[in-house]
Amino acid sequence: MLNIALLGAGRIGEVHAKSITSHAECRLVAIADVVEAAAQKLAARYGAKARPVNDILSDATIDAVLIATSTDTHSDLIERATAAGKAVLCEKPVDLSLERALECEATVMASGKPVMIGFNRRFDPQFATLKRAYDAGEIGKAELLAITSFDPAPPPTSYIKVSGGLFRDMMIHDFDMACWIMGGAPAKVTATGASLVSAEIGAAGDIDTAVVTLSWADGRIAVIKNSRRAGYGYDQRVELLGSQGLLSAKNLLEHTVEKITSEGAVSATPVYFFLERYMRAYEAEWAAFIEAVKSNTPMPVTLSDGVAALACAEAATRSARSGETVTITADMLGSVAIEASTAA
Amino acid sequence: MLNIALLGAGRIGEVHAKSITSHAECRLVAIADVVEAAAQKLAARYGAKARPVNDILSDATIDAVLIATSTDTHSDLIERATAAGKAVLCEKPVDLSLERALECEATVMASGKPVMIGFNRRFDPQFATLKRAYDAGEIGKAELLAITSFDPAPPPTSYIKVSGGLFRDMMIHDFDMACWIMGGAPAKVTATGASLVSAEIGAAGDIDTAVVTLSWADGRIAVIKNSRRAGYGYDQRVELLGSQGLLSAKNLLEHTVEKITSEGAVSATPVYFFLERYMRAYEAEWAAFIEAVKSNTPMPVTLSDGVAALACAEAATRSARSGETVTITADMLGSVAIEASTAA
Amino acid sequence: MLNIALLGAGRIGEVHAKSITSHAECRLVAIADVVEAAAQKLAARYGAKARPVNDILSDATIDAVLIATSTDTHSDLIERATAAGKAVLCEKPVDLSLERALECEATVMASGKPVMIGFNRRFDPQFATLKRAYDAGEIGKAELLAITSFDPAPPPTSYIKVSGGLFRDMMIHDFDMACWIMGGAPAKVTATGASLVSAEIGAAGDIDTAVVTLSWADGRIAVIKNSRRAGYGYDQRVELLGSQGLLSAKNLLEHTVEKITSEGAVSATPVYFFLERYMRAYEAEWAAFIEAVKSNTPMPVTLSDGVAALACAEAATRSARSGETVTITADMLGSVAIEASTAA
Amino acid sequence: MLNIALLGAGRIGEVHAKSITSHAECRLVAIADVVEAAAQKLAARYGAKARPVNDILSDATIDAVLIATSTDTHSDLIERATAAGKAVLCEKPVDLSLERALECEATVMASGKPVMIGFNRRFDPQFATLKRAYDAGEIGKAELLAITSFDPAPPPTSYIKVSGGLFRDMMIHDFDMACWIMGGAPAKVTATGASLVSAEIGAAGDIDTAVVTLSWADGRIAVIKNSRRAGYGYDQRVELLGSQGLLSAKNLLEHTVEKITSEGAVSATPVYFFLERYMRAYEAEWAAFIEAVKSNTPMPVTLSDGVAALACAEAATRSARSGETVTITADMLGSVAIEASTAA
Repeated sequence: MLNIALLGAGRIGEVHAKSITSHAECRLVAIADVVEAAAQKLAARYGAKARPVNDILSDATIDAVLIATSTDTHSDLIERATAAGKAVLCEKPVDLSLERALECEATVMASGKPVMIGFNRRFDPQFATLKRAYDAGEIGKAELLAITSFDPAPPPTSYIKVSGGLFRDMMIHDFDMACWIMGGAPAKVTATGASLVSAEIGAAGDIDTAVVTLSWADGRIAVIKNSRRAGYGYDQRVELLGSQGLLSAKNLLEHTVEKITSEGAVSATPVYFFLERYMRAYEAEWAAFIEAVKSNTPMPVTLSDGVAALACAEAATRSARSGETVTITADMLGSVAIEASTAA
Repeated sequence: MLNIALLGAGRIGEVHAKSITSHAECRLVAIADVVEAAAQKLAARYGAKARPVNDILSDATIDAVLIATSTDTHSDLIERATAAGKAVLCEKPVDLSLERALECEATVMASGKPVMIGFNRRFDPQFATLKRAYDAGEIGKAELLAITSFDPAPPPTSYIKVSGGLFRDMMIHDFDMACWIMGGAPAKVTATGASLVSAEIGAAGDIDTAVVTLSWADGRIAVIKNSRRAGYGYDQRVELLGSQGLLSAKNLLEHTVEKITSEGAVSATPVYFFLERYMRAYEAEWAAFIEAVKSNTPMPVTLSDGVAALACAEAATRSARSGETVTITADMLGSVAIEASTAA
Repeated sequence: MLNIALLGAGRIGEVHAKSITSHAECRLVAIADVVEAAAQKLAARYGAKARPVNDILSDATIDAVLIATSTDTHSDLIERATAAGKAVLCEKPVDLSLERALECEATVMASGKPVMIGFNRRFDPQFATLKRAYDAGEIGKAELLAITSFDPAPPPTSYIKVSGGLFRDMMIHDFDMACWIMGGAPAKVTATGASLVSAEIGAAGDIDTAVVTLSWADGRIAVIKNSRRAGYGYDQRVELLGSQGLLSAKNLLEHTVEKITSEGAVSATPVYFFLERYMRAYEAEWAAFIEAVKSNTPMPVTLSDGVAALACAEAATRSARSGETVTITADMLGSVAIEASTAA
Repeated sequence: MLNIALLGAGRIGEVHAKSITSHAECRLVAIADVVEAAAQKLAARYGAKARPVNDILSDATIDAVLIATSTDTHSDLIERATAAGKAVLCEKPVDLSLERALECEATVMASGKPVMIGFNRRFDPQFATLKRAYDAGEIGKAELLAITSFDPAPPPTSYIKVSGGLFRDMMIHDFDMACWIMGGAPAKVTATGASLVSAEIGAAGDIDTAVVTLSWADGRIAVIKNSRRAGYGYDQRVELLGSQGLLSAKNLLEHTVEKITSEGAVSATPVYFFLERYMRAYEAEWAAFIEAVKSNTPMPVTLSDGVAALACAEAATRSARSGETVTITADMLGSVAIEASTAA
């Protein structure tokens, strides 16, 4: 039985609290939050204690911490938690600053402590099925990957302002999916974005609609489409064209009922948002983390993976501004990603 | 918080133990089974006590019992539990004998105690969505209902021998679905069956493939197809033709990934069996029972509904033998079903 | 190049005129109709001559006739045309009277002339694909066949009155499909019908909604659902459960466009009626007839097949009235069907 | 009745000959080809005459010409035919050189003669249904368009060498689709391409896999994916995200039969290539041309549309080389396209 502390009691913290407490080999013992009342409330629900971060990190009975605080605290908390000897699962992105994330990675590599980044989509049963089929050679060699990732509705503008922008906040998931499926970071990134959904988002200096093209050194291409508003639900699809065929992971739908009348055949929309779509992914992500901690094996998603996705986001941000293709250089990638990229 | 006892610690008992213990307002306090070791093992897992049935029924702190024992004990246990003042949820079918089930219903009606029969499919999100759409008038008036219900593989012949036959054991669910959707028991039943899947089933005097046609007094028709072996999974579909359109509830699939190669487009099979398909239905069924107990409102599936489904099974059994359409007479139905049937 | 005469210039005659004239090896030379103006109009369109039936049958330059007249004239015309040495393709059904159809079959068998019955659905690319896959053993041995066949809207009551009833007029196609797929005529027929769609149809003594169960001597079962009004289009589906899986032929849709909004995902309805669905089938049917005529090989659909379908319709009519299962006896079947039935 | 001449008797010429001759108001009177035997063979099949181009253009009884010759002859033939007073339907692309195409457009504009460019996909029933739904406002304002367009197999390298490259030869169709759906030419083009399918294509200096992003002055974005080899058939899909929902046109499949076994559910692949997919589009294209000629109304696809698509191809070619976004300037567009682009 592992003792777990949760740092951050916001929306995503609540999601993780659920995964932690439904895992048979974990006990959620402590929760910290800058808003103490939030920590207390969540702690009460699960029989944990609200405690300050310092307390938690210096408590030797705590085995692992899950970092679900605001993004600007991630790097610091990762460094402090690993320094305190804890295993760490940290929400994406590692940091808004690629430089800071690289620094953090170097520190953690030196410490030798296990850190996993929370790219939950790798654990989604649909995407995992696609990845397994591809790895099994079912469609030959990958050539062209297409990811569609639309939110149902934009977040509040207040959130947009501190989010680091669409590429670091939203498309970061898709960059990781692309690196994961293709087996390493891309060589070049080209981005096009616009503010079409919400004038407020544009006024805040961000975009809400974007297309990014990634290309690998061997010519393989990936294209990612993002929109902050699909309206009809959470549109999360992946299509991979290989030398022998196409794999596609389609949406999960609300239900399987179809109504046919003279007006047409009406069936269900995709499930509305990330909890409906990815709750099973969060559970599987947590189980994979605990499994790696217990067996002392490499984390399934590393800090270096987190850096690679952030490097893509950084490159996309620059490309969208300049209209030029941006090359991802070795100094933009964490050590493991460089290796993977070279090996690919 | 309600104190619950579970009678029966077999496969279906385990399913219910899960629903009971994950319900926020229930405490599973006692489990009984003829095989005491089974009761003890399951009790240990959920922090309950293994106790004899008599003990449980005479314990005034127990509010409700869930009967998941072998079918031949259902009527007795229902009568004893209601006499002891417990609310009861009993697995289907009420009894293998229609006569005994009617007797049980009369006894329970006299006692005034709430009894619910476990027709879990009514609580399946797919079928419930279809029913809601129909009740909302989305396809006009029902005319022709078609139910497809295939198991992935036949049960052991030892089970077949004590099952009461395909109509009472397997199609009983579909009879209830038909009565539920159409709003009352049918007037006539015609059945055709054969043993095509397994010679052993035939040798045991049962069938494994069957088509039954039900018709209501006002002419509406339902047709049910059953097979003990679909091979590819649990095929559970409902189609309702109304005066203004068609509603159909399709299968839940293992995943949403499609692979297209020159060989064809391959997608997932239906989820393999009842746990994968109906776990959410079992939970919703239990929640509906608890809600009715707490609010002292009528049970969503009554003992009379259980009798109506059994009357259909009885009629189908006779029709398959004689080759003649069998009329369901008023004396074959429980009191509530007669009313519903008349009102329909 | 074969010279073809068309008897009957009504709606279905027009369909056939199109198939005949687009066939590279046929010349439509003559058209007859009791309404001479109709024959003249259609003849003018295709550069044929309107001529009386007698004239046509005694014209030695005419190789084959297509009979698309009213049903009550089929048997006579088949006998006269074969006696005159013509190859014949006759629309279904052979006759409204099974007795008369059997007489006609005996006469034609004696003449040795080739007669094909126009069961166009056998030539539908969807159903033909299903049949081919089944014959290739892709799902093992057939066990349970289900045919859904709904018209978009009922025909005029004047038509209903002379149609011979739903079983002979509409379900005759499905009886043939069942015999074709299962490889011979069934042993028993059970029917349930009602007038739910149109009170006028009921007043005319017919039904508009029906379910028929067929069973073969070896236990295999087929069930056919018919409705005169689906509202949303022509619903034409076949599902065959075999020992190793399920084959299903789904509807052709108007188009492949889907619209997803917060209201749901809307896609196309089935193509509206038989021309949209079966024009390719009519062309393939005609091509198969011409191929058989030219190569002097057996007709792909025989007069005996027409008799078998009619025997099913006759049995269904009796069963719907009596509520009893009706056995199809050898004297109800044409010679070839008896053989096929025995061999199956 | 219009007299039509066909210039070019190759593969695409044969397709057009079929459309012309099945149109009720056209007579195919003459066919020209540099390979005279080819012209003669095709002419013989349809009762036309093989004649030299000069002859045809100076024959005052010929109303319209369809140009289906090799691309390098298009501009010249368009100019000569319009000068000779013929209405013209010319296959895409207008020319391999944007400069020459603009010159041709200026000449034709001066002549006032009607010229239509053969972008057949606008007339595909699937895409036309999508366009109609969008124009009717069913998903609000367009934001993000995605076109998938994969060939089943690459053409011979000899063809690749004279094709003008993937952007001018293959993606030209998709550029036109994007301009058509979005209502005008884009402002910027970014392209990424690679040779992944065939080393020979790479050696010939061309690419076989590409992603191009187009953006309009108001921020709307389109992304086009092309591959010369999908293997499983002709993958032709369009998806349009609007402010209120998503429209998607899916593939046409070979048939509607599904087989479900324990191995999975297998359904049909897309129809294999352009004839199967687009024969109806070619017919509708020709009908639209004839309708415009007869009613003397503007052509549904203009020479200026052909120039706009070519400008996109030119920009994509440059962008793929430089890695920079290329702006489409007014001098790259024909007069009508400039207007449309401004109005959009």
